[in-house]
Amino acid sequence: MRVLAVDTRRREELVDVTERVREAVRASGVAEGACLVYSPHTTCAVTVNEGWDPAVTADAVTYLADAVPRTGSYAHAEGNSDAHIKTMLVGSSVTLPVSGGDLRLGRWQAVFLCEFDGPRHRELWVTVG
Amino acid sequence: MRVLAVDTRRREELVDVTERVREAVRASGVAEGACLVYSPHTTCAVTVNEGWDPAVTADAVTYLADAVPRTGSYAHAEGNSDAHIKTMLVGSSVTLPVSGGDLRLGRWQAVFLCEFDGPRHRELWVTVG
Amino acid sequence: MRVLAVDTRRREELVDVTERVREAVRASGVAEGACLVYSPHTTCAVTVNEGWDPAVTADAVTYLADAVPRTGSYAHAEGNSDAHIKTMLVGSSVTLPVSGGDLRLGRWQAVFLCEFDGPRHRELWVTVG
Repeated sequence: MRVLAVDTRRREELVDVTERVREAVRASGVAEGACLVYSPHTTCAVTVNEGWDPAVTADAVTYLADAVPRTGSYAHAEGNSDAHIKTMLVGSSVTLPVSGGDLRLGRWQAVFLCEFDGPRHRELWVTVG
Repeated sequence: MRVLAVDTRRREELVDVTERVREAVRASGVAEGACLVYSPHTTCAVTVNEGWDPAVTADAVTYLADAVPRTGSYAHAEGNSDAHIKTMLVGSSVTLPVSGGDLRLGRWQAVFLCEFDGPRHRELWVTVG
Repeated sequence: MRVLAVDTRRREELVDVTERVREAVRASGVAEGACLVYSPHTTCAVTVNEGWDPAVTADAVTYLADAVPRTGSYAHAEGNSDAHIKTMLVGSSVTLPVSGGDLRLGRWQAVFLCEFDGPRHRELWVTVG
């Protein structure tokens, strides 16, 4: 298991980690299989989507901020219930194909750490097998 | 593949199954890899999130009940379309890291069966490899 | 890795690909493990849910069209930000149990390609291991 450290800079943002995941896959020596990119946090998710136009991830951040308001009649007293809920909706991990010793993504796909309660020091745990 | 039986007690609730998943991982004898926790149901999901403060999962249940209303102009006649949709949003499984022969979760993370149409007898299927 | 080609027919629809995934699992020769069904696209997801009553997937399509409107104050200029966001919410892949050399699903479960910006030629990448 390899640990990728990511320092986020805003409360909510998607950070492209594709090249670092790719390096971890290549370093693993696994030729065929799958790669688990796992967030060990409860207010930070992982997703795969378009990496070319940053407007796509900006739209996702805006949409989620509207759909899951930061303030509301939440029971959890830390003021970040929205971040927990967004993490459940987007998901705490992605599993990606590995073939020919390399990460296999679609042409427009990138891997993103989804920060919903930053800025913070975050980790992603990468398992290839 | 190991089967965990869970009897839920409400229509909607998140049930912490972390220790049972951990036991399945340890019993598998797998040292390094990943663990798939899979719901074979269509109105019951699986997620990973905070296990310390029960207000977090209570907020998630409340949020989802508001976001996906139980009654509406649904075509499916069984009265549980909301539960099917919630299951698609949260997801039917999680994949978790296994290292050193043990389940590896973040400090605040727990694994939850998400009941959206209970109370029912449910199963989770755990595969370690 | 096996590639399943799917031609979708509407802008938004869920297409049952269960039997094709099952064939890929059987052809792999893997007896025990898991199967990754991966969408290499950014406006097309994968889910598992009820395959018996088509009203269930119809309700999901209708719900998502309401929850993530096609038009809005989106920054991405291609007019399909809704499709990118829906893909993040539903997820780009599912991981399914394999046991006894066969795909193991719950009684009512089917595997669906979720088209959110069709009609298009799509692929699913299936990895069994």
